Amino acid sequence: MTVKVKPAYEPLNELTVLDVIKPLNFFNSASLNNLVVQEIGDGNLNLVFRVQDSDSQKALIVKQALPYAKVVGESWPLTLDRARIESDALLQEAESVPHLVPKVYYSDSHLAVTVMEDLSDHVILRKGLIEGNTYPLLAKDIGTFAANTAFYSSDFYLHPFDKKEKVKRFSNPELCKITEDLVFTDPFFDHDTNEFPAELKSSVEKIWSDQELLREVAQLRFSFLTRAEILLHGDLHTGSIFVKEDSTKVIDPEFAFYGPAGFDLAHFFANLTLNHLSQNAHTKEPFHRESVQSFLLQTIEKTWETYTNTFTELWREKSSDPFVKTEGVLENFLQHTFQEAIGFAGCEVIRRTIGLAHVVDLDSIEQKDIELFYKKKALELGSYLIKNQRKFTSITQLTNWIRGA
Amino acid sequence: MTVKVKPAYEPLNELTVLDVIKPLNFFNSASLNNLVVQEIGDGNLNLVFRVQDSDSQKALIVKQALPYAKVVGESWPLTLDRARIESDALLQEAESVPHLVPKVYYSDSHLAVTVMEDLSDHVILRKGLIEGNTYPLLAKDIGTFAANTAFYSSDFYLHPFDKKEKVKRFSNPELCKITEDLVFTDPFFDHDTNEFPAELKSSVEKIWSDQELLREVAQLRFSFLTRAEILLHGDLHTGSIFVKEDSTKVIDPEFAFYGPAGFDLAHFFANLTLNHLSQNAHTKEPFHRESVQSFLLQTIEKTWETYTNTFTELWREKSSDPFVKTEGVLENFLQHTFQEAIGFAGCEVIRRTIGLAHVVDLDSIEQKDIELFYKKKALELGSYLIKNQRKFTSITQLTNWIRGA
Repeated sequence: MTVKVKPAYEPLNELTVLDVIKPLNFFNSASLNNLVVQEIGDGNLNLVFRVQDSDSQKALIVKQALPYAKVVGESWPLTLDRARIESDALLQEAESVPHLVPKVYYSDSHLAVTVMEDLSDHVILRKGLIEGNTYPLLAKDIGTFAANTAFYSSDFYLHPFDKKEKVKRFSNPELCKITEDLVFTDPFFDHDTNEFPAELKSSVEKIWSDQELLREVAQLRFSFLTRAEILLHGDLHTGSIFVKEDSTKVIDPEFAFYGPAGFDLAHFFANLTLNHLSQNAHTKEPFHRESVQSFLLQTIEKTWETYTNTFTELWREKSSDPFVKTEGVLENFLQHTFQEAIGFAGCEVIRRTIGLAHVVDLDSIEQKDIELFYKKKALELGSYLIKNQRKFTSITQLTNWIRGA
Repeated sequence: MTVKVKPAYEPLNELTVLDVIKPLNFFNSASLNNLVVQEIGDGNLNLVFRVQDSDSQKALIVKQALPYAKVVGESWPLTLDRARIESDALLQEAESVPHLVPKVYYSDSHLAVTVMEDLSDHVILRKGLIEGNTYPLLAKDIGTFAANTAFYSSDFYLHPFDKKEKVKRFSNPELCKITEDLVFTDPFFDHDTNEFPAELKSSVEKIWSDQELLREVAQLRFSFLTRAEILLHGDLHTGSIFVKEDSTKVIDPEFAFYGPAGFDLAHFFANLTLNHLSQNAHTKEPFHRESVQSFLLQTIEKTWETYTNTFTELWREKSSDPFVKTEGVLENFLQHTFQEAIGFAGCEVIRRTIGLAHVVDLDSIEQKDIELFYKKKALELGSYLIKNQRKFTSITQLTNWIRGA
């Protein structure tokens, strides 16, 4: 009797990574001796190996989760199960928007490994934006991504048995806890994970003592904890998007879980907003700056427009909801999603300014007084969005507020 | 090598039930020959055996789920997993309100069996109410039950890891589907599961064509599908409550799952409301009728009052929510719970009048024209509650509407 033992978890290295990919027949056998392996991850949360056939230039990525996380120098244990969630989410997303996510070739939950498409010809959107680049497909692609992944994972489309099975499968307590703490809690209290210059203290204290603001944040946090509406990416900031001129790829859905429908779009909008503020410092040439900022606002507007149009079309053509023809049901859902997205965006803008994990967009502003000026603006805008979310009825109201900030 | 095989599921009978209880040492060994076994269930959904020592009169109940359900003559397969859910929910509830649920002595998920406290000295509340009896402890007990089971299962109390584990453990797709269909869908469309006399047709068609009403029902149904706020009993009507003068026991939580906080109270209120309407026909003697009806309304008021007071106290003393001291957070939660309960109650009043599963309270009215009169009243009241839920700010508004119906 032969017993097949599941491989125990062990971090891969440049040699053992070959054992993982050899059986996949991705590279033809003749080229196995020509493979060049390079570890290109930041080495903190995950190992990322790029494996390339030096003859054909064909390549793939082997991503392996490490059993801990490192944020600003602090390490803590973090579940390897996030690798299963990530590859599972990529496969789910690929069912409706295969062109907008990296292809998954193989995954192994014991090794916490996902083998996937190499996207080295793309750049991280955040980096591209800070450099003042624009991406004409971005709005359409992200709107399409958000609407499809939302609709096809929702109760409007799935049989309730399938939906409830997926809710269980994508239960993601450890990574949700990071968001619950770092997005919805710590920045709103005098917590030692917060990180901001002393000059911001009075602005921050204003936030901590604003009962109306805190009440709304509590409500948004409660939504995040309880509303299993759609399968979210869970961390859709501009660092989770790979772009090039003619392609957009949403990567790294390790925070995926069933949550409130407005959450992903909110984080995308918030990170474009932070970049918009930072452009005032980064892009010196006024005409270029204006064109980048105008691109950012148009991207927000067109993303929401694409989202609503795509979602509406899917709803009309493919919904199995018994109330699909009842006047106003879709409109109520979209309006609630939109208004809650405004609130979530406000939380993200604030936490990226004073919480544990900042954005390079603002932090890389060279002149200290200008950095402080725009960080204060960010806090004011974030607070306004949170407190006034239910006054927002159109996306141009949002872009007008960002323009004015 | 001995292999211990899990017992395969097989329906118990009066003999095999003894094999289940013998190892429990509930009865002393001397009395095992004196045990009298009686099947007292309705034989449709579950087998219910009462086992009694004829000497000491000591008794217990063995409840076994059957692999199908029978509603109005129709049979369909139904998961045995509901026995696991039921005993698991009883154990959860017993952690905070042990005096309000039957004690569980043993459970076996393979046999779909729960062995529990015998409550033969109690009567089913619905029956007691129809007979014109009143129960002075009822409001306090149900308010206490609802507040404790809500708070201790919520994110306000539990660590998010525990909460999310429980959400998975109490995922209950098959029984939720029954509610999704029979409470929130079928009664609002011309569906063949509906059951109502021809004379109600025009009232029913008014419901089916009322877009404002349907829009609100769609929203309530969406809440039921998506909001994992607290561990609900899931079927808290007056047939799920055992009473006697000095005791209240909430039984049969096989529909338990994580859902919206207002749902259980809504069903309790709705079933008291239906009984209140039916008292006009059942209790002829005016003074007695008035006293029963006044008891019903006071029970609704006092249940809500107990719920809010108890929940508030638990929140203040035991909540781990970071926003526990933020002004208005608790009040917002209670108000939303209350208003949504009004809407859920409206759905229950309507579906119990024209849907598949009626209540004896109304159906047993002897005079046809009186039955019709009060059924129409029920439909009007149900519709009003659904459409105006967000106008309700106090429990007496609700009892005034019930009194006026």
